[in-house]
Amino acid sequence: MTRKSATKRISVTFKPNNVTTAVSEKANLLATAIDAGVHINASCGGIGTCGTCKVLIEKGSVDSKRTAMVSAEEYARDIRQACQSRVLSDLVAHIPLESRLEAGVLEREMAGGSEAQAVLAGGWRYNPPLTKLLVKLTPPTMKDNSSDLSRLQRGLKQICGQNNISVDMTVVRKLAAVLRDGEWTVTASLLRDDEAAMRLINIEPGDTRSSFYGLAFDIGTTGVRGQLLDLCRGNVLAQGLEYNKQISYGADVISRIACCAKPGGLKKLQKAVTATINGIISELLAEAGIEADDVGHMVVAGNTTMIQLLLGLDPKYMRLAPYVPTVSAAPQVAAAALGIDLPLHAYVYTIPSVASYVGGDIVAGVVGTGIQQSQQLTLYIDIGTTGEIVIGNADWMVTASASAGPAFEGGGIKHGIIAAEGAIEDFSINSVSLEPDIHTIGGSPPKGICGAGLINIVAALLLVGVINQKGKFHHKADKRVRRGPDGYEYLLAVAAETATGKDIVLTEVDIDNLIRAKAAMYAGCQTLIQSVGASCADVERVIIAGTFGSHIDIESAVTIGLLPDLPRERFIFIGNGSLLGARLTAFSTDILDEGKRVAVMMTNLELSQNSQFMHDYVAALFLPHTHIDEFPSVKSSLKRSKQETTV
Amino acid sequence: MTRKSATKRISVTFKPNNVTTAVSEKANLLATAIDAGVHINASCGGIGTCGTCKVLIEKGSVDSKRTAMVSAEEYARDIRQACQSRVLSDLVAHIPLESRLEAGVLEREMAGGSEAQAVLAGGWRYNPPLTKLLVKLTPPTMKDNSSDLSRLQRGLKQICGQNNISVDMTVVRKLAAVLRDGEWTVTASLLRDDEAAMRLINIEPGDTRSSFYGLAFDIGTTGVRGQLLDLCRGNVLAQGLEYNKQISYGADVISRIACCAKPGGLKKLQKAVTATINGIISELLAEAGIEADDVGHMVVAGNTTMIQLLLGLDPKYMRLAPYVPTVSAAPQVAAAALGIDLPLHAYVYTIPSVASYVGGDIVAGVVGTGIQQSQQLTLYIDIGTTGEIVIGNADWMVTASASAGPAFEGGGIKHGIIAAEGAIEDFSINSVSLEPDIHTIGGSPPKGICGAGLINIVAALLLVGVINQKGKFHHKADKRVRRGPDGYEYLLAVAAETATGKDIVLTEVDIDNLIRAKAAMYAGCQTLIQSVGASCADVERVIIAGTFGSHIDIESAVTIGLLPDLPRERFIFIGNGSLLGARLTAFSTDILDEGKRVAVMMTNLELSQNSQFMHDYVAALFLPHTHIDEFPSVKSSLKRSKQETTV
Repeated sequence: MTRKSATKRISVTFKPNNVTTAVSEKANLLATAIDAGVHINASCGGIGTCGTCKVLIEKGSVDSKRTAMVSAEEYARDIRQACQSRVLSDLVAHIPLESRLEAGVLEREMAGGSEAQAVLAGGWRYNPPLTKLLVKLTPPTMKDNSSDLSRLQRGLKQICGQNNISVDMTVVRKLAAVLRDGEWTVTASLLRDDEAAMRLINIEPGDTRSSFYGLAFDIGTTGVRGQLLDLCRGNVLAQGLEYNKQISYGADVISRIACCAKPGGLKKLQKAVTATINGIISELLAEAGIEADDVGHMVVAGNTTMIQLLLGLDPKYMRLAPYVPTVSAAPQVAAAALGIDLPLHAYVYTIPSVASYVGGDIVAGVVGTGIQQSQQLTLYIDIGTTGEIVIGNADWMVTASASAGPAFEGGGIKHGIIAAEGAIEDFSINSVSLEPDIHTIGGSPPKGICGAGLINIVAALLLVGVINQKGKFHHKADKRVRRGPDGYEYLLAVAAETATGKDIVLTEVDIDNLIRAKAAMYAGCQTLIQSVGASCADVERVIIAGTFGSHIDIESAVTIGLLPDLPRERFIFIGNGSLLGARLTAFSTDILDEGKRVAVMMTNLELSQNSQFMHDYVAALFLPHTHIDEFPSVKSSLKRSKQETTV
Repeated sequence: MTRKSATKRISVTFKPNNVTTAVSEKANLLATAIDAGVHINASCGGIGTCGTCKVLIEKGSVDSKRTAMVSAEEYARDIRQACQSRVLSDLVAHIPLESRLEAGVLEREMAGGSEAQAVLAGGWRYNPPLTKLLVKLTPPTMKDNSSDLSRLQRGLKQICGQNNISVDMTVVRKLAAVLRDGEWTVTASLLRDDEAAMRLINIEPGDTRSSFYGLAFDIGTTGVRGQLLDLCRGNVLAQGLEYNKQISYGADVISRIACCAKPGGLKKLQKAVTATINGIISELLAEAGIEADDVGHMVVAGNTTMIQLLLGLDPKYMRLAPYVPTVSAAPQVAAAALGIDLPLHAYVYTIPSVASYVGGDIVAGVVGTGIQQSQQLTLYIDIGTTGEIVIGNADWMVTASASAGPAFEGGGIKHGIIAAEGAIEDFSINSVSLEPDIHTIGGSPPKGICGAGLINIVAALLLVGVINQKGKFHHKADKRVRRGPDGYEYLLAVAAETATGKDIVLTEVDIDNLIRAKAAMYAGCQTLIQSVGASCADVERVIIAGTFGSHIDIESAVTIGLLPDLPRERFIFIGNGSLLGARLTAFSTDILDEGKRVAVMMTNLELSQNSQFMHDYVAALFLPHTHIDEFPSVKSSLKRSKQETTV
């Protein structure tokens, strides 16, 4: 006699992963996937507005209303938004190509992000914040039977001259055993603490100075990149990267912050990023054949939201004016306290940030490229959903962040995808036949358009006159221009040739989204440059950071008015500036100190309420720009192509 | 069908506590009592050599061999050593009076330990190491949207001028909420850290400066004493004390250290002392009506072993030459990390020690009485199983510890008991009738002899000539002197008059134990005084600390040669110097710094391998001393009493 019937368990299988899990009736399908470790893109964080989490219900039924994101045709084919679906019966859900993340994407990012050695910060000494010292002590006697700790402190003082070395209890706990195991010869690990004093964080028997490792991490909103560093020899032993597991809770920082407002949300996000980090650490250690016990320090750079989430700090006040983060320079914290799988003695240093939307990743990139050491007026740009911009030199720096939207990452673009295998990346057009030549990443059949591809396509179509400077199609200029459900569109690839089995097109809406994104970036640069009384032409170097930046074509970017029309030799691509700065910080206390100094010296200009920015933004809503004279090289190209077309 | 029969559970009831517990067959009876929270004395730590853990098996059976500690008569009466007994069947065990601890004992200690205000350290400012500051911040605006932490640090710097304030992550975690709850007015708790810098350990909304409490603790081998301090007003709100629950694992530091060698032993001892502390804290808070959340600091003094056990550090190397402790000045540690029931932000400061057998309790007593501030040559004595001695003044200090053995606490004395209700404490003898007059603590029928009583009895019997200067009975001098199983003995109380129903006697073995104990203390003082080129007569003050010291009669102590024969006004009793010093440290950073300075400035003289000490010790094995001229007042008393007896 059962008084309560057992809760009904329903089986859900995700394809192509072939992962099966059991849930109770009416479980949310997106949450089910997250719990089962299956990734489904969900840019909006699961609130139903982005349409990226579409799945095909192959078997079984779900309760799911059709929103504007699902067409009637898709709905009829049993395509549903996972975030809007509740499981009703045993289910098989197929995650289509567009809704999947693929490992190849980030690998390409890593490979592409080679650093321009020429712009690395110079003049720093190799003096890691974590150092190892060999200490040889005189064994105690009846005449000198002071405590183990006093003896060690005396020995340390003789070596490094410092008196005020604070001591962690983890050291005290193993001290007696280690001193005797090492027969009074031990290796002490000393960490520079937040007050620039020394902290004894570990002690090992004998001489272990040659086993001495650190980690540098860049925590990106999308990807997390790590490097295992040999602190003894000053080189990188292994590097790895993973999608930030937080992606399942939303693609951008705003949806992550929104997620924290839900019960347990902050904890989930914190766990997701540490799980990502732990996965990378374990791979790095395995690859290099190194024990976790030998890792004592980890330097992390990331945007302000990523760092707050890593530290378990609710970023809610960053989302509302006046956009205040909890910390800009956080205290160093024990790795174990954050749930990071490193030994008890290991500490995590986070590179300080400037403001809620100008993070330690930018500070890392700036100090890594040595802008603070140079008299050259330098513009530092990290292009992305949020574009961060710095202008300055050794004497001053001003920074701003421009909200560009997701277009550069394929978001808001009808067939936009991230820069994965099959993404259309390169594009050219025969100016006579107007036949397009498409190149995809990996050379496979096209799946969609990535950000770099979008820039190249729009630039090429502009130059041949298929689209005008307002971003509208000359609908008689090309047979590929046709009327689609969203207005005029350009046919890039026909269904028979694509990986998705559907036509891939570029719509006027897509072009409009790109124009708004590039306008925000360009206007941000312009406002910032003007704010310091300079003009674009005064900029002596443009450093383009970020994995996206590494893949864009400079001519196309200038053509659409994303980047200023400067002599091309002034542009330098440095790849992942954040990871670069984190690594240099782990290698040099000088760089660490420069990071602290730069974070404080940077003046943050809030663009969101800046009228000059609004003015510059509106002027930039044109290809390349309302004021064509700001883009002389584009002006002449447009003139030339117009003449050719006329001929 | 059961393949394994369930383990047999046996019921064990302890009387008079009436505590019943279930154990498996062959469980050790002492361990069973400890687990059930029932105290049975076990001075030797449960190895069978002290005979203090005897119980009467009223019902059921145990497997227990008879050792030399149990007489044939006792064995026949079903008296067994709990530590040597394994439970065989359902059991009722009665714990006799002698094997029990009684709460009244320590209460008397506390009451007796009043401090002589005249010798308190002077000249210190009231500036607790933990301070509270009210910080009024300007709310963030778009023009000033720096992070919460930067804003707070800026505010703190304006108030206290300090720049290098380190910040605990516990503060960062609640910072955003507290600043906004308090509408940008908050109270910050700043702790002086180990490097004499400031550490921000807590933050509360609004002005909480009037709710601001600390704790002072003395962790004794036998008793733990605590005081709840109002750090805002500088007074004691409540005080309490408990037996150190470690007693169940052995009465003295040596048996505690030995216990650590057993698997899990260190952890058990650490838990026992924190359980004791937690019990006291909860009583103090309840008594004063204060929330644990308002307590941010705890200052602890104790002997070196007690401090190492509290910190979870194995004291094993303290027991072997060259007697090296792990720490003398331990880092401050989060209370929660030790298992102490205080809020996450609270820290524990332990007063530094000098050596393995000269602990922070002595340093606390010295700085509490201001020896380091005075030019007077002062002798500081804490009499106990281990007697600690300090000689010195503002310019120098030498210290030593003398192993006196347990006689002063009633150990090794046939009818010795600790100073509890019914202990013979005072004793006089009619010089004509030779009839003794006995006074017990609380005036109840005698149970045994406490340390102070022992000194009084031996002094009185010496002066009337019942015992000679070698400590032997003139067996014809008194009808109460008789031959007992252990040689000659003096009948103090007949069975009919005692609480135990047995005769209470003093044996020659007892006297011998006392002589060896007092000889160790006196020789320790003498060796120390000589080591600095002084003589006894040069000593301008004798400060007697410790709860035992507070109850001894100075004339008797001089008569038996425990204390030097100096003008009586030079003796000052201060009660618990350790708790006094801990409290003053919690009230004044000046005293805290003096403690650090004194611990380093004290030179420790190891007596155990000192030939002068051995020589002085042998010379002191006489009543009062081989060199009677060192005790002129006793010499004349003895002469006078001899004349009286002759008359």
